[in-house]
Amino acid sequence: MYIEESARLALYAPGEFGKGSSKTAEGVLRYGKNPITCVIDESQVGNSIMSVTRINVDAPIVGTIEEALALGADALLLGTAWNGGAMPDHWRKDIVKAIEGGLDIINGLHDFLENDANIVAAAKKHGKRLFDVRKPPENLPVAAGKVLKEAKHNGQDSLVVLTIGSDCSVGKMTAALEIQRSAAKQRKQAAFVATGQTGIMICGRGIAIDRVIGDFMAGATEMMVLEAAAEAPVVLVEGQGSLAHPGFSGVTMALVHGSCPQAMILCHRPSRKLIKGTDFAISDLSKLISTYESMAAYLRPSKVIAIALNTSDLSELEAQAAIAEVQAQTNLPTTDPVRFSADLLWQAIEDFSLTPANH
Amino acid sequence: MYIEESARLALYAPGEFGKGSSKTAEGVLRYGKNPITCVIDESQVGNSIMSVTRINVDAPIVGTIEEALALGADALLLGTAWNGGAMPDHWRKDIVKAIEGGLDIINGLHDFLENDANIVAAAKKHGKRLFDVRKPPENLPVAAGKVLKEAKHNGQDSLVVLTIGSDCSVGKMTAALEIQRSAAKQRKQAAFVATGQTGIMICGRGIAIDRVIGDFMAGATEMMVLEAAAEAPVVLVEGQGSLAHPGFSGVTMALVHGSCPQAMILCHRPSRKLIKGTDFAISDLSKLISTYESMAAYLRPSKVIAIALNTSDLSELEAQAAIAEVQAQTNLPTTDPVRFSADLLWQAIEDFSLTPANH
Repeated sequence: MYIEESARLALYAPGEFGKGSSKTAEGVLRYGKNPITCVIDESQVGNSIMSVTRINVDAPIVGTIEEALALGADALLLGTAWNGGAMPDHWRKDIVKAIEGGLDIINGLHDFLENDANIVAAAKKHGKRLFDVRKPPENLPVAAGKVLKEAKHNGQDSLVVLTIGSDCSVGKMTAALEIQRSAAKQRKQAAFVATGQTGIMICGRGIAIDRVIGDFMAGATEMMVLEAAAEAPVVLVEGQGSLAHPGFSGVTMALVHGSCPQAMILCHRPSRKLIKGTDFAISDLSKLISTYESMAAYLRPSKVIAIALNTSDLSELEAQAAIAEVQAQTNLPTTDPVRFSADLLWQAIEDFSLTPANH
Repeated sequence: MYIEESARLALYAPGEFGKGSSKTAEGVLRYGKNPITCVIDESQVGNSIMSVTRINVDAPIVGTIEEALALGADALLLGTAWNGGAMPDHWRKDIVKAIEGGLDIINGLHDFLENDANIVAAAKKHGKRLFDVRKPPENLPVAAGKVLKEAKHNGQDSLVVLTIGSDCSVGKMTAALEIQRSAAKQRKQAAFVATGQTGIMICGRGIAIDRVIGDFMAGATEMMVLEAAAEAPVVLVEGQGSLAHPGFSGVTMALVHGSCPQAMILCHRPSRKLIKGTDFAISDLSKLISTYESMAAYLRPSKVIAIALNTSDLSELEAQAAIAEVQAQTNLPTTDPVRFSADLLWQAIEDFSLTPANH
């Protein structure tokens, strides 16, 4: 269950808006369906959403919960996420204040609102709802490679495309959503499978795989891919982490084997030299491509067919140079789907699906 | 917290003793420190533990909880495990009966006793303890490859050895424990890191990685390896699953990157042709070796240095032939550590550690 699309959201990102840690807020601003009343970050008051994030949403940045209430918000969406995802204590006070002011709360962190007795009591007293988006459903299955035989659309095998990465926070969700947009422009159907909190907030359903118990991560992925296959001939699965990430590679591995992609799109941030939060170097892209292909191939042949770069911290000239360089190195169609649209990536998927040997 | 080593155990394996699903009971019989009063399996009454499992433990197989009580048991250990690990309802009645008869309960399944109101009420009323062995600790960290710099024993880098597999249930825990025995025979210290319920029941501590939330699996592993490194110059990490397993590869990946092994021992069951519970073929061992080495190498160079075969379902002649064949194919020291001891595997670890280039 997720909140109605008509609910007006205040995005809570105190001290963090525009930083890497507010990628949830930015994802919802860029792709969400709900109206936005404001962003809450006292450190950015006076700036516009456009100037901070280059996202064209016309809503103010305010400093307090009270201002968000005055603007007519229906729900407070906690808009930052970081490694491990523990909720700061001073947030809890603001959350209770928001509930008392009449807001539902949407939370994507590992710490659940339902485990905070004060927040639960306030929500009960004021008749407000708590959405712990990362809470997985009960009774998830163990994966068994079922996608190979059972992922069908109108009797035909579905084409499963997984976005993969050289690191976390490089644009895997964004690439998948931009590809879906490019498909829609051509009136083609592609189903999006949300596997993280931001994706779930954007499309209203999904399972945060990094919050699932180890044994059932691939099974949860498999279940979602089978459901999505019934809806569209192409299934776009949001990837997580990286097979090269010391902390999150297990989650990534489960997504690769749970979704059994025939095709993968590698996402990468050219300016990133070290894996986020560590002193390990980002691996060579050709090596990563070979790793992902060989790991996926334990269940069925799979090919990296295109590269999505996140050049948001580069100038346009630098971005074009980075794209040309990666394209030359990998010999694969390469673009920044936010800056230049994902039409090239969708084209790569269509080209792949038209080659009978590929599926 | 785990039960005292003096507690006398009744091993509960109704209808399953001697089958693959009772590997927890067999592991505790073979390696546990607690005295055993009996095994409970009405389908095996009249047989001996030795005849069913080839394990030399002198205790009867009985059919009921009442008989276990009459034999003076202090605790009932639930001794079977299977994919997904949900607890059958008819067990719950036997568990309540055992509590009423005065037994503590030790449970390694995904379903926790503490979530069953009847069992909790019975335990409270009778002053008995419930051990949910698979329940992970709170506040686990995200892994960051800390083992590389921080796993030290007396100021020297520890040698971390991970057991890996061609499938689940092929002897990864057993190989690690047999290697520890072979080390002890030579008065060498090697610490065992338990990562699954049976290992925890045997050594009294550890974390069941497959029960940990995705984001923290590698972090839990890293934490345990750092603790174990303080205790011994060699750390033997119990592996789980397989990088080729469609359901469990995520757990395996987290163990590889959480433990950062310099050396790995590949465990394999020659008679197994398909991955357990699926119709995927068991991969070629040379390919698996290359996969594990290249995935581990994202954090540091790592080498598969020996092979442990589980030949328990082969004759001695067949076992010797299987060992010779795998040794010829991989050019690595190969043995069945249960049948022929793990001396050869320990020797491979010592040889590896004496080559300065390896660490």
